[in-house]
Amino acid sequence: MAVESAQALMGRAIQLAERGLYTTMPNPRVGCVITDANGKVIAEGWHKRAGEPHAEIEALRDAGERTRGAIVYVTLEPCSHSGRTGPCAEALVQAGVARVVYGMEDPNPRVAGSGLQKLRDAGIEVEGPVLEERCRALNPGFIKRMTLGLPLVRSKSAMSLDGRTAMASGESKWVSGPAARADVQRLRARSCAVVTGVETVRFDNPNLNVRADEMALELLEAEQAAEVQPLRVIVDSQLRTPAKAFILQGDAPTLVCTTERADPERRQRLENAGAEVVVLPQDKDGRVDLLALLKELARRECNEVLIESGAILSGEFLYRGHVDELIVYLAPKLLGSTARPLFELPIERMGSVLPITITDMRAVGHDWRITATTDIER
Amino acid sequence: MAVESAQALMGRAIQLAERGLYTTMPNPRVGCVITDANGKVIAEGWHKRAGEPHAEIEALRDAGERTRGAIVYVTLEPCSHSGRTGPCAEALVQAGVARVVYGMEDPNPRVAGSGLQKLRDAGIEVEGPVLEERCRALNPGFIKRMTLGLPLVRSKSAMSLDGRTAMASGESKWVSGPAARADVQRLRARSCAVVTGVETVRFDNPNLNVRADEMALELLEAEQAAEVQPLRVIVDSQLRTPAKAFILQGDAPTLVCTTERADPERRQRLENAGAEVVVLPQDKDGRVDLLALLKELARRECNEVLIESGAILSGEFLYRGHVDELIVYLAPKLLGSTARPLFELPIERMGSVLPITITDMRAVGHDWRITATTDIER
Repeated sequence: MAVESAQALMGRAIQLAERGLYTTMPNPRVGCVITDANGKVIAEGWHKRAGEPHAEIEALRDAGERTRGAIVYVTLEPCSHSGRTGPCAEALVQAGVARVVYGMEDPNPRVAGSGLQKLRDAGIEVEGPVLEERCRALNPGFIKRMTLGLPLVRSKSAMSLDGRTAMASGESKWVSGPAARADVQRLRARSCAVVTGVETVRFDNPNLNVRADEMALELLEAEQAAEVQPLRVIVDSQLRTPAKAFILQGDAPTLVCTTERADPERRQRLENAGAEVVVLPQDKDGRVDLLALLKELARRECNEVLIESGAILSGEFLYRGHVDELIVYLAPKLLGSTARPLFELPIERMGSVLPITITDMRAVGHDWRITATTDIER
Repeated sequence: MAVESAQALMGRAIQLAERGLYTTMPNPRVGCVITDANGKVIAEGWHKRAGEPHAEIEALRDAGERTRGAIVYVTLEPCSHSGRTGPCAEALVQAGVARVVYGMEDPNPRVAGSGLQKLRDAGIEVEGPVLEERCRALNPGFIKRMTLGLPLVRSKSAMSLDGRTAMASGESKWVSGPAARADVQRLRARSCAVVTGVETVRFDNPNLNVRADEMALELLEAEQAAEVQPLRVIVDSQLRTPAKAFILQGDAPTLVCTTERADPERRQRLENAGAEVVVLPQDKDGRVDLLALLKELARRECNEVLIESGAILSGEFLYRGHVDELIVYLAPKLLGSTARPLFELPIERMGSVLPITITDMRAVGHDWRITATTDIER
């Protein structure tokens, strides 16, 4: 089979995987295509939700009786361990497929390659990685969590052309337009957790939930996305979150991260309001230690975490090197020089500026969305 | 002749006009294509420099004996007045052309249509405007000067993703990269004047000249561009410009705009250093009145004026509604929240923010160039 064709089929498997963008958490997004021995597509599958079959199993079911001698294209190495749905490598062996083409190895260093080895041991031809970079891009958070024990951290801001996110008074409705706000809904929906600070909760009183009717997606896709609400996380060293805050209401769970300094009565009030409160280590200034917070979220199987907060907390995450990706919506207006900054970042000299890499720039309604990665040495 | 063909030929005339981008000042950029009666191109011309033939004359010369019954495509209505090179309408009549297709009428309301009328009176068929918007885009400054008696004002800045142009100390070398700096050279070269403030002169000591070897253009084009240096203008209410400043040196002329308050001795020193000093009206704070400055530049036949200054003067031009176009180079770095703003603009409430329209966004090396128009009601 020609290289082009293998890439085209893997490309199709990637498209299938993307259908799980909003729903597979904490599992990775995986897609699978099965062809007969001549390269004719006979089945497709993708992982939909944790607890439901993996992509390979979906595709094998779709193929029915025709799996003997078939070729399987799958974006991620088939698992060899017995999860909730049994090991996929074993199922592929049982199905009698002739060849497996994979997109990337399992990112968990302890099991990487063992699924492929099980296939080879059973006499199945194994080929890959194919379109590895694109396959990795499906699951940046899952990969980071498996390799570093930390979630992928994405910071989202909306700013004017002159880099301002709110007036000096805090007034910020609305910097960006409806298309950008729908884009934020989609960013939230693909995240396992959305993190904000107590100041934002007190001043803006946001819901921080995923709202199907505001995603600008097909209704069915939007409704499925909204079924898997991200964990709402408040960084609140002293438990100043009001018990009536919107962020404590609705179906989505809320986690309040605080320190030993917090008042037990306030804790009780927030727990009564439905929140989970967790005490984390504090930094030298007595605030919640952000690395400890991220480790806690990884422990809770969070792959992608979205920071949606003011300039102080966002700046702190950034300054401490915890942010992987910046998403900035640039709105066509000038808020002026007394307005609030994009990030509170104390930098004195040109030699100390933070370099970033702009990886994407596109129009979103009347705004522009800038995607950048931080050039942090880890 | 089909409409497509007339547009294609006007498109070619626009390309020819663009060859004069850096050299025709204070005249407009104009291009001309001549076809025979069957639509076959037989001649081309464009205006190169003030004092040299207009585009139509260049094209008629190129056509030689073949002008009788020809069709002429010209981006701007042929002039009817006797300038340094004689009226073009008269020359077209003499040449016996059959038809003239024009891109836009003369922007000077006092003469608009008179060149076309002269052609019609001589029995020449006249058609237009064709591709009017693109033809107007060749000469935004010339058009504004002819219609409003003011130059087109373009403000150029280089900022970080977080909207900062320099560190708190003033240190700003370099926010943007070499490709963006070459782009600025080309912006300067198309301008009739480059305006800066005395603070920038004192702190950064820029040349503000056009340097052929830094334009990233073909050598010949760059050298021709650098032959026509823009007027360097310093806004300096109290004549604090040092007599040894680089901006007073080199071949390009320098105009220092000041007020009655200025010290005569300092004036003499600057004049001795080669500058021209002009006293302009002052605003209520005793600074040079910026509208008076722009009128003075229009009086000196400046079409496009480039503001290259710090956040205070740029902000002042903007706040007073004098800026038509913003050019912002966005560099992939974060300068932090103590760094200097894009513009000093005192705005208090969301209802008072300045709306702009982003008209172009493109990568320039590792930076991005944002072009925006201000949504100012005049």
